[in-house]
Amino acid sequence: MPQDVRFDLPFDTPVSEHLEHARSRHLRWVWDRGLVRSQAGFEEYRSWDLPGAAARTYPHASAADMVVLMNWFSLAFLFDDQFDSGRPDRADRVAEVARELVVTPLRPVGTVPRVVCPITVAWAEVWTHLSDGMSLTWQTRFAASWGRFLVAHTEEVDLAARGLAGTLDLEEYAAFRRRTVGIHHSIDAAERSRGFEVPAEVQAHPLMERMRDRAADTIGFMNDIHSFERERRRGDGHNLIAVLHRERRCSWQEAADEAYRMTADRLAEYLELEARVPQMCDELGLDEEQRTRVRMGVEAIQHWISGNYEWALTSGRYAADKESPAARAELAGKGSLDDLLTV
Amino acid sequence: MPQDVRFDLPFDTPVSEHLEHARSRHLRWVWDRGLVRSQAGFEEYRSWDLPGAAARTYPHASAADMVVLMNWFSLAFLFDDQFDSGRPDRADRVAEVARELVVTPLRPVGTVPRVVCPITVAWAEVWTHLSDGMSLTWQTRFAASWGRFLVAHTEEVDLAARGLAGTLDLEEYAAFRRRTVGIHHSIDAAERSRGFEVPAEVQAHPLMERMRDRAADTIGFMNDIHSFERERRRGDGHNLIAVLHRERRCSWQEAADEAYRMTADRLAEYLELEARVPQMCDELGLDEEQRTRVRMGVEAIQHWISGNYEWALTSGRYAADKESPAARAELAGKGSLDDLLTV
Repeated sequence: MPQDVRFDLPFDTPVSEHLEHARSRHLRWVWDRGLVRSQAGFEEYRSWDLPGAAARTYPHASAADMVVLMNWFSLAFLFDDQFDSGRPDRADRVAEVARELVVTPLRPVGTVPRVVCPITVAWAEVWTHLSDGMSLTWQTRFAASWGRFLVAHTEEVDLAARGLAGTLDLEEYAAFRRRTVGIHHSIDAAERSRGFEVPAEVQAHPLMERMRDRAADTIGFMNDIHSFERERRRGDGHNLIAVLHRERRCSWQEAADEAYRMTADRLAEYLELEARVPQMCDELGLDEEQRTRVRMGVEAIQHWISGNYEWALTSGRYAADKESPAARAELAGKGSLDDLLTV
Repeated sequence: MPQDVRFDLPFDTPVSEHLEHARSRHLRWVWDRGLVRSQAGFEEYRSWDLPGAAARTYPHASAADMVVLMNWFSLAFLFDDQFDSGRPDRADRVAEVARELVVTPLRPVGTVPRVVCPITVAWAEVWTHLSDGMSLTWQTRFAASWGRFLVAHTEEVDLAARGLAGTLDLEEYAAFRRRTVGIHHSIDAAERSRGFEVPAEVQAHPLMERMRDRAADTIGFMNDIHSFERERRRGDGHNLIAVLHRERRCSWQEAADEAYRMTADRLAEYLELEARVPQMCDELGLDEEQRTRVRMGVEAIQHWISGNYEWALTSGRYAADKESPAARAELAGKGSLDDLLTV
């Protein structure tokens, strides 16, 4: 099953001109903040090329903000890998750290974390920058999107700890995937990256809600296809191909083909909704300046679909054939090389 | 220092016609759900008359919703009292339960709590009703308001556990009080109680943000005045009168007089802002139906200021002279009679 599965996307995303400069500053930060603690962990982390993901999903960020966005990606991805299926007792610590990450954006900026470990300390630092200059309404939306994602992540870890990772049916899985993919807060962050906000009445409009959900589905399913080999190595049953294979009792190839079709369908639904945006703007009586912010909000979604796709095709995170300490750790059921949940 | 301090409010609130019917159903629920576990605790709880608070702050709720709102009040007030200054180690359990309460509205409705105790189980049940029929945007706003309050509550408990309850200066205390009073989510809930939502662009408007903040200040300071005797009994230094007494090195009477003046000032500021609402509606180009929802949103704030005030004048919670097991518990540094944080 190749990582290199292609989709036909009707939009593109630029790549930030700050990529290389920000990458080197970011890699120093990751090491300084103790987010990687071993040489093997550092090599593995570098192979993922998260800076390449940030530079494509937030192409308009300033040089300084680009570093912060990369820093944010690193702690989110590294936290995602902290659960070790060989140690189900770690689920409680994962949940504790996740809840701490949830409350950070609800505290006054600059508050010291109550649960201290490299992940929570890094997030408090990143949030100080990420929230800077944004309205209370945006902060509220981001905090809830981020919180819903982290709560779903805990649910995922709890299912794995109880050996129930592969028990959701297709409908349950699709709803679950929409919550675990973490796209809603990722799109919210795009407003910060470009220094604008989508008008509140647009974010509250059912059309925008559905567009965000369809984008999340599309990206979640694409990620499942691209990360299938990695998740099989990790023994992670939360993957669309695995769910289809089990539920339809079909071959792996048939399951992959069906996953591809489902992904293309969600993308088509997203595009249908997107075509109705001008009508929504008319209905809400928006002026030109507000329509510009809506257009930038739609571009933010496109940049995420397209940028994440471009990155996933080549990221070492999802490489099928690996000969590395990371692959050995994965084969042993461990998510990552370095423990980031203790001090 | 009498609980019976009067303010001159330019608006009134009706009292729900469902008060007595809902009260009896509510008191059964509180007992059934294990939120009071002793006869003394039940008598103390009854003396607070929280049903009288709910009936005044949410006068337009249906009979069934009125019970749910009373149930919600009970778990919030009882949780607020769970910290025992004689047992600072309890601060961690309070924080754990608080974080669980924060994430409940971020989970799919009906999810079983991950941290189980009478408070969290009761809240999951209440949230199922409270969120029913409300938009994602409202749920997001409520979740963030509620989360900010609970995080501040944990901060308050942590300060008390470290013996630092009386160390904030006046400016710090005023900012802190705005977060601990819990008015933002209380006003959010008013929309649910009356089956409407304030337009998203109005909630996002700086005028509405400032109005909500000034209402929170007004109510927080009023509560400090009315609850002064109770908090002195409990050894709680988080009270405006105590902060003024310490910072200004003045007499208790002078501190109380100054607290009264400050409260009246915040109320006057709120009223000045409220007078600008029609101008905001013009600026946003709202139609008649939207203006009706704005008017109901303003009434929700008024009902909270006025209803909470009317209730606090007579509630047994704040009575100065008490001869009861509750008063003895308070004198011993305990917040409440029954432990609700364990199973």
